[in-house]
Amino acid sequence: MCTASNYITKDHYFGRNFDYEISYNERVTITPRNYKFEYRLIDDIESHYAIIGVAAGVDGYPLYYDACNEKGLSIAGLNFEGNAVYLEEKEGMVNVTPFEFIPYILGTYSNVSEVKKALENINLVNINFSEELPLSPLHWMISDDTGAIVVEPLKDGLKVYDNPVGVLTNNPPFDKQLFTLNDYRSLSNRNPENTFSKDFDLDEYSRGMGAIGLPGDLSSSSRFAKVAFTRANSFSSDGEEESVSQFFHILGSVEQQNGCTFINDPDLYEYTIYTSCYNTNKAVLYYRTYSNSQITAVKLMSEDLDSAELINYRLETEEQIAYIN
Amino acid sequence: MCTASNYITKDHYFGRNFDYEISYNERVTITPRNYKFEYRLIDDIESHYAIIGVAAGVDGYPLYYDACNEKGLSIAGLNFEGNAVYLEEKEGMVNVTPFEFIPYILGTYSNVSEVKKALENINLVNINFSEELPLSPLHWMISDDTGAIVVEPLKDGLKVYDNPVGVLTNNPPFDKQLFTLNDYRSLSNRNPENTFSKDFDLDEYSRGMGAIGLPGDLSSSSRFAKVAFTRANSFSSDGEEESVSQFFHILGSVEQQNGCTFINDPDLYEYTIYTSCYNTNKAVLYYRTYSNSQITAVKLMSEDLDSAELINYRLETEEQIAYIN
Amino acid sequence: MCTASNYITKDHYFGRNFDYEISYNERVTITPRNYKFEYRLIDDIESHYAIIGVAAGVDGYPLYYDACNEKGLSIAGLNFEGNAVYLEEKEGMVNVTPFEFIPYILGTYSNVSEVKKALENINLVNINFSEELPLSPLHWMISDDTGAIVVEPLKDGLKVYDNPVGVLTNNPPFDKQLFTLNDYRSLSNRNPENTFSKDFDLDEYSRGMGAIGLPGDLSSSSRFAKVAFTRANSFSSDGEEESVSQFFHILGSVEQQNGCTFINDPDLYEYTIYTSCYNTNKAVLYYRTYSNSQITAVKLMSEDLDSAELINYRLETEEQIAYIN
Amino acid sequence: MCTASNYITKDHYFGRNFDYEISYNERVTITPRNYKFEYRLIDDIESHYAIIGVAAGVDGYPLYYDACNEKGLSIAGLNFEGNAVYLEEKEGMVNVTPFEFIPYILGTYSNVSEVKKALENINLVNINFSEELPLSPLHWMISDDTGAIVVEPLKDGLKVYDNPVGVLTNNPPFDKQLFTLNDYRSLSNRNPENTFSKDFDLDEYSRGMGAIGLPGDLSSSSRFAKVAFTRANSFSSDGEEESVSQFFHILGSVEQQNGCTFINDPDLYEYTIYTSCYNTNKAVLYYRTYSNSQITAVKLMSEDLDSAELINYRLETEEQIAYIN
Repeated sequence: MCTASNYITKDHYFGRNFDYEISYNERVTITPRNYKFEYRLIDDIESHYAIIGVAAGVDGYPLYYDACNEKGLSIAGLNFEGNAVYLEEKEGMVNVTPFEFIPYILGTYSNVSEVKKALENINLVNINFSEELPLSPLHWMISDDTGAIVVEPLKDGLKVYDNPVGVLTNNPPFDKQLFTLNDYRSLSNRNPENTFSKDFDLDEYSRGMGAIGLPGDLSSSSRFAKVAFTRANSFSSDGEEESVSQFFHILGSVEQQNGCTFINDPDLYEYTIYTSCYNTNKAVLYYRTYSNSQITAVKLMSEDLDSAELINYRLETEEQIAYIN
Repeated sequence: MCTASNYITKDHYFGRNFDYEISYNERVTITPRNYKFEYRLIDDIESHYAIIGVAAGVDGYPLYYDACNEKGLSIAGLNFEGNAVYLEEKEGMVNVTPFEFIPYILGTYSNVSEVKKALENINLVNINFSEELPLSPLHWMISDDTGAIVVEPLKDGLKVYDNPVGVLTNNPPFDKQLFTLNDYRSLSNRNPENTFSKDFDLDEYSRGMGAIGLPGDLSSSSRFAKVAFTRANSFSSDGEEESVSQFFHILGSVEQQNGCTFINDPDLYEYTIYTSCYNTNKAVLYYRTYSNSQITAVKLMSEDLDSAELINYRLETEEQIAYIN
Repeated sequence: MCTASNYITKDHYFGRNFDYEISYNERVTITPRNYKFEYRLIDDIESHYAIIGVAAGVDGYPLYYDACNEKGLSIAGLNFEGNAVYLEEKEGMVNVTPFEFIPYILGTYSNVSEVKKALENINLVNINFSEELPLSPLHWMISDDTGAIVVEPLKDGLKVYDNPVGVLTNNPPFDKQLFTLNDYRSLSNRNPENTFSKDFDLDEYSRGMGAIGLPGDLSSSSRFAKVAFTRANSFSSDGEEESVSQFFHILGSVEQQNGCTFINDPDLYEYTIYTSCYNTNKAVLYYRTYSNSQITAVKLMSEDLDSAELINYRLETEEQIAYIN
Repeated sequence: MCTASNYITKDHYFGRNFDYEISYNERVTITPRNYKFEYRLIDDIESHYAIIGVAAGVDGYPLYYDACNEKGLSIAGLNFEGNAVYLEEKEGMVNVTPFEFIPYILGTYSNVSEVKKALENINLVNINFSEELPLSPLHWMISDDTGAIVVEPLKDGLKVYDNPVGVLTNNPPFDKQLFTLNDYRSLSNRNPENTFSKDFDLDEYSRGMGAIGLPGDLSSSSRFAKVAFTRANSFSSDGEEESVSQFFHILGSVEQQNGCTFINDPDLYEYTIYTSCYNTNKAVLYYRTYSNSQITAVKLMSEDLDSAELINYRLETEEQIAYIN
């Protein structure tokens, strides 16, 4: 399914693996400040913060998968099948649809603290983008340089959790995921003492034995534990390139290799279609695709942010190999 | 420590993760056919197959970590500490040192079958390259498009194993590693039936649950299982770029992220310094470094292979980001 | 901590491991029908169903750990530290204390269905038995031959779950425990096919490989999975002795061996102080203690059940060895 | 299959779980000193140490599964299918058959040290007891109060290992089993510190979390790890009853519950048919059977050990319940 993470060095980085079996022509979409957002149930918004992110290849509206705004606030929506519940319109609430949620949050708010307050009043209503594009069951991680939260639409309304571990995958709900980490409390990046028995020696035959027990399969629970450990133990210097590089290595630890998660015959597998990494302080989107290992970058600030038209760049999916001779 | 793998589509691909805490200025080194190999105990060899590979940054001699020759034969040496034993010179045997082993094999033989026969007569003698460069304890994976073998220098001489799984890491010896895979026989890229109980339902809450039990830590045993599963279930089309891309994804599944394997204070960790991928049929070396996600390529056939001088290219370690705007 | 299970052959069996580091002189206590139950907040009850169970060694009141009544209804209280919350008295509710809960339920109701209905109106109030005997944080499994439920006192009141797996341990709350079983869905009592790879064989070197992945430590989560698997795959004929024997084998699978769960120096460990097994249809209590492997039995129906006085039998803790010669 | 263990308090205890799907009417068999042992290839032995053990229900010859002699030396044979190799007769060696091995060792030697020396000269020849009773593939654990060894008949002869962990199960060979324990080196009977991350807390929600990672399935590898941990952390006082009780708890940790290891339809499962426990210093055999939880004892020293006739006691398989009222 998907994995999101943040990472903080000098700047705040945020991004995600987008794991799925088919691509909807995802592309980088920039929403300038004066693109008019028409909402289904609330008033349209003429002017707002500028946004950069990865969106589905649907013209005329930015169906963001993940994005950040010019204020440094970032968000990603991740599959939450079987748990996400969208409700009927409720009077007295800000009724936005799930597909409007990212534009609404990033267009309106500048940090996580503002978002937490606003969420008390938001209701996610069960309205499709179109008959062809029904709603996905989602939950969201929202992050800035002060921390992160998780938003889950459950039967009894939006549930908001602080996210101390800085990662999110899919099912089960976040509180269950977090609880499961307790079982890994003894894992470490250091080789452990022999505490099995004081009566006989055991061989320290490899480095890295301190994390034995960490799962390596690609289910959502296992990716949660693996990426949480990798992020928690991650080390890099704090320069831009080192930080971005390390961020891709963190999410690389739970990449879905094509073939390893079977969906359908013939030969349909879930794999990591793209990985995004936002420097949210500078509003730069870095990304890689499964078939192009090189990092590509798009800068929000390089565009005319006061315009009213969406700007799109297709994702680079062709392998860019540097031939030396 | 390290992980090697092969992968076969239309061509045969071979390569490795080189995991360590410090770099010895590894570089791509090409040994043309007439570079004179001086051996410590056997006759010098004036003319031989041309070789391309990654070698330590030591001038005048190609101290290969991994390499392939113009005939499509490839090899990698991997750490085998505590198990590797190099012996005294033995009469009647071909006495080569461990650091001469890769040049000798790739210079002399064109395929795995020839190598297997030759190994019956080879003795690895305990002679350093220099006082500053003592021998590393190693075992080797040797691979071509017909299959792969593992060579282990044990107390009682060289042990040669066929390698049906096409991967190698470090300790324990290969037969023990292979045996451990039996415990993972039920893992699959498909979600499993509920066989726990016929009396109650269990929820299939995520894709990828068929491989629950696969380890995700970075010890040599766990990397062996994880990369063997990833390789065995790998799917790609058979074009050059798709194959190379998939190969890097296979080895990416056991990459060592900086910070996750502690070595020494302050902040010394083992990490994947580089990943190599040889198309051995075309004698092209592709590689990535930890700090440069883009694939770089060097072609053996683009050089003057009849020369007598080593050719070196430093590894690209600077992140090559493609800025779009 | 503790493990409870039920088991159904011709009759319904229920019981538990009582795991702790010190014994409070537990004993078998029979409460006849006319023992007067004085309640703290509700009216006293003069006449009720007769009860047999294991209770703390406190005179004058049956502080049951687990028990069953003459109607075939059985219950056990298990440690639920950090999660159990007892509330203030609530008007309009049946306000009983946690230590009154087992007597109240077993004295008043004849089956699980009645209990479920009654629980809608029960409030567990935060009142100690005495200053010396403060309340334990508990949750309860209640079982009869139609099925079982789990009752958990949480912050927002009593939570009642149907229990399809027929077992209970301790933390985390039951819904989280149950969810974790999903990760074991592929486990089986049959040796699995090799689905790891179609390209190489793997050895079926042992029987019992189908349950590889089942945890064997003594934490509450791991005991939950282990005993659920053992119970779900359990086989016995349906005679009384075979059923009782098999029941002790089921709970034996998660027994706590002395020394394996450290509590305090010097030499204080948690261990399975006793195991109880009720044939609830016949109201017979079978038990074993850690130091006496022989099964001891006490029959409710052998006593004068119309009396008003508690009847106590100390637990047999001396090893009863049958010497043959 | 089977599990053997030793345990030392004031005396030396040794025994095993015998796991199989059908019973061959195992019984306690005492071989007095003057029972004449007729050997197939070596000279008959008229007089020897007296032996007590559990043997197959075959008249006229003690086909021991496990036994101890009057000198305190004990031995058990455990299934070793696919690995055990019995050879042709070899000149200059003591050629005994596998079914003669236990009588020969226990009849002739008084301690492990003597046995180790003798094994240098023993050859296990491939001769059946009878056409109806072909040889079982076996390996053996031999133990006294100075320590234990494992004897494995491999292709290239008998392999003898010191056994520092004091347990044995079945496949794979002992050196591989022992190696696997390295992966459990961090397990402990104490709750672990949170070393997963220094940036967030993790909950210590249960006792016993220090051994998370210990396997709980019934395959031979998993039983090896589980029983090795239980034995290594075992605590009891050193009296006879406490020691015997604790010994049964140790082997109880890897008991095979009926139903959990499927063999054949309908309803054929492997289970722990009996568990034996020898106080080898006093030559007392204690045992339990699957269907009789009480411990039964037979004393070697209570018999006339100078006789020439085998003495047999059938195993008690009927549940001995102590009814209190």
